[in-house]
Amino acid sequence: MRIAIDAMGGDDAPKVVVEGVLLAAESFPDTTMVMYGDENQINQYLTKELSNIEIVHTDEKIESDDDPVRSIRRKKSASMVLAARSVKNKENDALFSAGNTGALLAAGTLIIGRIRGIDRPALMATMPTVSKTREKMLLLDLGANADTKPVNLEQYATIGSFYAGHVYKIENPTVALLNNGTEDNKGNAVTKEAFGLLKNNEGINFVGNREARDLFDGVADVIVMDGFTGNAVLKSVEGTASTIFNLLKSSIKEGGIKSKLGGLFLKDSLIEISEQLDYSKFGGAILLGVQAPVLKTHGSTDSEAVYNTLKQAREILQSNVVEDTVSYFESLEED
Amino acid sequence: MRIAIDAMGGDDAPKVVVEGVLLAAESFPDTTMVMYGDENQINQYLTKELSNIEIVHTDEKIESDDDPVRSIRRKKSASMVLAARSVKNKENDALFSAGNTGALLAAGTLIIGRIRGIDRPALMATMPTVSKTREKMLLLDLGANADTKPVNLEQYATIGSFYAGHVYKIENPTVALLNNGTEDNKGNAVTKEAFGLLKNNEGINFVGNREARDLFDGVADVIVMDGFTGNAVLKSVEGTASTIFNLLKSSIKEGGIKSKLGGLFLKDSLIEISEQLDYSKFGGAILLGVQAPVLKTHGSTDSEAVYNTLKQAREILQSNVVEDTVSYFESLEED
Repeated sequence: MRIAIDAMGGDDAPKVVVEGVLLAAESFPDTTMVMYGDENQINQYLTKELSNIEIVHTDEKIESDDDPVRSIRRKKSASMVLAARSVKNKENDALFSAGNTGALLAAGTLIIGRIRGIDRPALMATMPTVSKTREKMLLLDLGANADTKPVNLEQYATIGSFYAGHVYKIENPTVALLNNGTEDNKGNAVTKEAFGLLKNNEGINFVGNREARDLFDGVADVIVMDGFTGNAVLKSVEGTASTIFNLLKSSIKEGGIKSKLGGLFLKDSLIEISEQLDYSKFGGAILLGVQAPVLKTHGSTDSEAVYNTLKQAREILQSNVVEDTVSYFESLEED
Repeated sequence: MRIAIDAMGGDDAPKVVVEGVLLAAESFPDTTMVMYGDENQINQYLTKELSNIEIVHTDEKIESDDDPVRSIRRKKSASMVLAARSVKNKENDALFSAGNTGALLAAGTLIIGRIRGIDRPALMATMPTVSKTREKMLLLDLGANADTKPVNLEQYATIGSFYAGHVYKIENPTVALLNNGTEDNKGNAVTKEAFGLLKNNEGINFVGNREARDLFDGVADVIVMDGFTGNAVLKSVEGTASTIFNLLKSSIKEGGIKSKLGGLFLKDSLIEISEQLDYSKFGGAILLGVQAPVLKTHGSTDSEAVYNTLKQAREILQSNVVEDTVSYFESLEED
């Protein structure tokens, strides 16, 4: 297996990317890590020589504020573009970047290409739940597409189910539709129509509508939503969590001796909770519906999150989820 | 001023409603509280005789799982319907309920009626921020309309600005559009078109797109969004906050002596944070865009939230915001 890595994407690139790649290359000798980027800068952080690390030099890169589609088309030798081309040309098997999300989505869709039968690839993340019976859930689309049709939601349900089954070995994974109420007749024009499509789709295990309030209770293995709402939900969750933790921190810091002692005694609990909610432990977000795994971590990522995402890329490749998704949609076209 | 109160709506009705009404009636002798509902049940909790409390008996009520529009049309002597009719007939000036939200929205729109020129009334709530310069913000639409056009968002901006100016005395209130990025060209088809309308509307102080992640930082006085997204954002915020507080509680409870001590010492801080984030202190949600104030608290409300919402109803009436909104939209039609 060979993973193409955009070494220049992310706030602390290439440092944290190279550090994460080193960790992954040591742990997974069966996987070759091919870093695209500035050789001098990369070598600065490459503290070990490993036979499963390769470097392809380029001095062009996509900036975080570059226009996604335009930069992908014009910066033909940017690290992200070269890495994507190498996957398209089958030199490598998966693409990783911590850089410009829009550009990575564009690279995945325009360079690597959609799976035939999937109109819109979706951005998916694995998130933790507080349920005792379901440790994690898959949410998609988290923002690949701002405008979404009912059939897109149906396709998200299929590709999300394939991922849950193949990568997480969940048998007959349950699928829910994020909606503004749990009753069958709830929703806007798009979710109402999608409900009918999902209900009648025999290839998935649809359990109905679920609300954003109950997400963390682990209401289903796969939860589909339009990308505009998905983006708002993810950012609301992140914003609320960071607001509460910041309030707690400043309350401990600015409070009297009692608060400070309380903070000290509760430190382990707070770290445990923040780790429980930290979804980078599951790896990065993945662009599902393209012809190879395309993975993304936060721009403000650390080397451990890079490692986790490369580990996830390897698991995806081993699971053959992309190949089986391709076959499934081909069989639909033949019907 | 006379407020029509659906005494039978909410999980603990009429108990908590009557208790809240008593508090409000004592505090505001200039305001008459007219309770609609079962006289026997209401009297059970009416521990004082106050001259500004009236009761209109009815033994019909709308249940929390009743179909909103159908129940409003068929249960003609339900407490909520009679209360709404009394506002329509100008016997009373504002409507309050802690009952079925959908039915209350239907009662507001179908019985009391829209303001001419406003296509879709919106559900708005005042929420706290953690900003030092902006204590609160107005969010709308939080779910009155599942399907939203750009012109609806423009109207939300206008009625939200009127509310901020009249009720909260904020001069030239800032308006933001909730979007999937802060850049001007971000969005789905609806928000992209709405951005242009908002930018060109000289009656409002539009400051651009804002993301859900930054809401609590107090990015604007009024933030408009479609009702489907607004519902998802509000429920994501509530779900995340309650998940974190529950994790913290069980971590303190199930942890060792260190955690228990930490919890004890930090108790005041935790209460303070949870009060800071509790938006019921600002009153309830209001249906904006109808011909009289229509106010709602959570079904699981307590008497203090009922009191806060009745206080808010009084402030709205004193501010003449509805009358001035009516005049403004009339002046637009004359142009």
